[in-house]
Amino acid sequence: MTPDATPALSSSLSAIPSRDVDQTLVEQLTRQMTHRIERDAMRPGSRLPSIRQLASEMGVSRFTVVEAYDRLVADGHAESRRGAGFFVATKPAAPLAPVPRHPVLAAEGNIDIRWLLRNMFRDTSAAEHAGGGLMPPDWLDAEMVAASVRAVGRTVRDSLLGYGTAQGYAPLRQQLAARLQADGIPAHPDHMLTTSGVTHAFDLIARHLLQAGDTVLVEDPAWPLIFGRLTAFGARPIGVPRGPDGPDLDALARLAALHKPKFFLINAAVHNPTGYSLSAGGAYGILRIAEQHDFIVVEDDTYGELHPGQPIRLAALDQLNRVIHVGGFSKTLAASLRVGYIAAAPAVVQALTDLKILTALPTSELGERTVHRILAEGHYRRHLVRVRARVDMERDRTLKVLLKLGVKVPQLPPAGMFVWGDCGRDTERMARLAAEQGVVLAPGSLFSPGQMPSTRMRFSAATAGNISALRVIESLLQAFD
Amino acid sequence: MTPDATPALSSSLSAIPSRDVDQTLVEQLTRQMTHRIERDAMRPGSRLPSIRQLASEMGVSRFTVVEAYDRLVADGHAESRRGAGFFVATKPAAPLAPVPRHPVLAAEGNIDIRWLLRNMFRDTSAAEHAGGGLMPPDWLDAEMVAASVRAVGRTVRDSLLGYGTAQGYAPLRQQLAARLQADGIPAHPDHMLTTSGVTHAFDLIARHLLQAGDTVLVEDPAWPLIFGRLTAFGARPIGVPRGPDGPDLDALARLAALHKPKFFLINAAVHNPTGYSLSAGGAYGILRIAEQHDFIVVEDDTYGELHPGQPIRLAALDQLNRVIHVGGFSKTLAASLRVGYIAAAPAVVQALTDLKILTALPTSELGERTVHRILAEGHYRRHLVRVRARVDMERDRTLKVLLKLGVKVPQLPPAGMFVWGDCGRDTERMARLAAEQGVVLAPGSLFSPGQMPSTRMRFSAATAGNISALRVIESLLQAFD
Repeated sequence: MTPDATPALSSSLSAIPSRDVDQTLVEQLTRQMTHRIERDAMRPGSRLPSIRQLASEMGVSRFTVVEAYDRLVADGHAESRRGAGFFVATKPAAPLAPVPRHPVLAAEGNIDIRWLLRNMFRDTSAAEHAGGGLMPPDWLDAEMVAASVRAVGRTVRDSLLGYGTAQGYAPLRQQLAARLQADGIPAHPDHMLTTSGVTHAFDLIARHLLQAGDTVLVEDPAWPLIFGRLTAFGARPIGVPRGPDGPDLDALARLAALHKPKFFLINAAVHNPTGYSLSAGGAYGILRIAEQHDFIVVEDDTYGELHPGQPIRLAALDQLNRVIHVGGFSKTLAASLRVGYIAAAPAVVQALTDLKILTALPTSELGERTVHRILAEGHYRRHLVRVRARVDMERDRTLKVLLKLGVKVPQLPPAGMFVWGDCGRDTERMARLAAEQGVVLAPGSLFSPGQMPSTRMRFSAATAGNISALRVIESLLQAFD
Repeated sequence: MTPDATPALSSSLSAIPSRDVDQTLVEQLTRQMTHRIERDAMRPGSRLPSIRQLASEMGVSRFTVVEAYDRLVADGHAESRRGAGFFVATKPAAPLAPVPRHPVLAAEGNIDIRWLLRNMFRDTSAAEHAGGGLMPPDWLDAEMVAASVRAVGRTVRDSLLGYGTAQGYAPLRQQLAARLQADGIPAHPDHMLTTSGVTHAFDLIARHLLQAGDTVLVEDPAWPLIFGRLTAFGARPIGVPRGPDGPDLDALARLAALHKPKFFLINAAVHNPTGYSLSAGGAYGILRIAEQHDFIVVEDDTYGELHPGQPIRLAALDQLNRVIHVGGFSKTLAASLRVGYIAAAPAVVQALTDLKILTALPTSELGERTVHRILAEGHYRRHLVRVRARVDMERDRTLKVLLKLGVKVPQLPPAGMFVWGDCGRDTERMARLAAEQGVVLAPGSLFSPGQMPSTRMRFSAATAGNISALRVIESLLQAFD
């Protein structure tokens, strides 16, 4: 510290330590000034030392002081007044402590879809997400994703500054088309669009196809989020029972004749929550009925890549005439990249692209470039092989544990992230009790369009490895006996 | 090349060159194999050499061959059959040539919003976007953004694998709250949510507040996209004339009494397209009328940061009771990050967050972390100062050029990216002729809710520096004389 420091400063700031410590000079100075301001030793509105003064007093460059002051302004501790210098912020800064982790929300009324969603997307630990569909981080490859982000950061220049193109990053669309073509789906890069994940894709499709009062056929059971979304559009979701070969075709034909649905939404491959994939006959039957009753089929391939071989896909049979094919990378790569896509007939893609722009402008090219790079480098195929092996192994483990606990699984799931078990008791009550113990479960009632009481429960394939959740499940299954 | 190479290979592949060239061994091998397959020298369905064989023949490691084969699979040139090896793809690969740049779309019928949007988000050059609202890349700081992306890639590990939290990346919300608090807006990190840009924010707000048949008050002129979006909801946008001090308050009161609007959407600061900001009296008048007629005010701060000082913001006067405040980073940082936000009363934020999850799940944490890092490092404030100086300088240049060309600008724009000029002739016709010459202009008709014919044109502040667009504009202005 130089001897000519003003008393106010020399008493309030410790000397900047030697330069070989882990923090940069800027960080150290910022921290010291923050500490001083927060302890109220500096009144709100009071002037901070001038840049020249503080630099000289602390024996650092003016540049270091400017950087530190900028950070103080950025985090709300200081204000910059044009031509007058820097001042302690007159408004209290927003709390800058880490946001506390919230416990699981208790259900206010019923365990409903809104409750499930609010709990799924909180800042909670994996242990609490026992009902969710994401894989635990160690089943995936965080470093592959991070390396791709860094590589994108090294190669992009101006390209992130603009909005990108309406249909999404063109090189990614080319890769996606190549992948789909290899699976027999005649996708073309010009007739695809990217979305912020599969959920956004459905939102666009529903907006395009639906008006209030319309009927949509869904599977029963099916992914809960779609019921809420369809209801939000004023549409009526009607359930078609799903079996191991596909939907009940008699029911499908009858309901189609009765309700004149706008579309039928289906997990053709690796159905959520049962893990079943369509048989050839089941797939052909759906398309025949769709033709006869003139409805569109929306094929959700969210978990399709967890199929061990090449599954039967409706878009491959139908050649994207009546089928809209939707997929994404949230489950097998990284959910937070928010990269999904739609392949469909050219006119449909054009309409959906217009809607995409009108409602959110183009999607983030940053996420799309990250996925593109992973695909381009060829790591994704082997990654999928590893992921599938892990999922299959863990699902078998979970299956064994659940069977031992008395859960019945009438037909074993051949693939995917879930075990759709029968607990022999009201699972909504189980989920309510589990929530009190900090564990989010996914009771069967959520998976039927009518939210009917159910003894089914969707268990994640990761359950066997989730000791704390497993203990809660075990105690709940025994408590009822 | 080893002497025991099979004839098929030794004749078709050149030796891998020395290892100090710019391409990696994997890239070289991939390129050679691609070239070979594309020239049809290898039949679709024919087996590629085994990994061991090719590695030995080419004098590279097996790992290099595996990587190259993976890339061939990723780009659709090869197929992997489990246990049987690699084969030339039986389906033709999707075209992998760069997607051609499209010329500006001719207007099929009228120059309408859909036409403008389709042209704005094409893969076209800056010169063609003379009507757009984005800055040219060299006014912004691509390297600052790219460095932040790389830094995020170095620090994230598992965090991108999950969905993140419903309201958005918490540390970013804390920074945003601190920034808004410094501007007198009582934002709290728990009562904010992030969005995929400002457009997504409006979409959520409109979905939350509107039903078909509802009326919304908008400014006249105003950003064209909102008319299209409101109409898509079955809502009726009614225009309130906007002057230099704000909307015409008599008209606002009269239209509010007549139409009972759900909300009034306004660019309080740095209005698009005029560049005006609210006066104190204008702001107070709006809030008094909103209170009297009980409608919500949605404050769009998209261009607010281009205001030279601290603009009057409705959310600061009203303290987020009746005002929903919306902002983002597309204009001043990088559009493709897709980061926007909403600050509002707690109950509104909760409802919008539920809707966000139901329609698209959480937003991309990758973009939010990139913005967070830029803000945390304190560069953004100085960046804004530089950007504003550039915008003001270029807008003045453009203004001078346009005045010289005979365009009238009745009241000079005090800030922002636009000059709202009067061309003294039908600007839709001008825009149609410009499109034929590959330049997208934004005629005044698009900016009124009724799409009324107009002699106004919105010119980008970048026009003076856009020589090819300027030449077209000049010739069109002269052609009519």
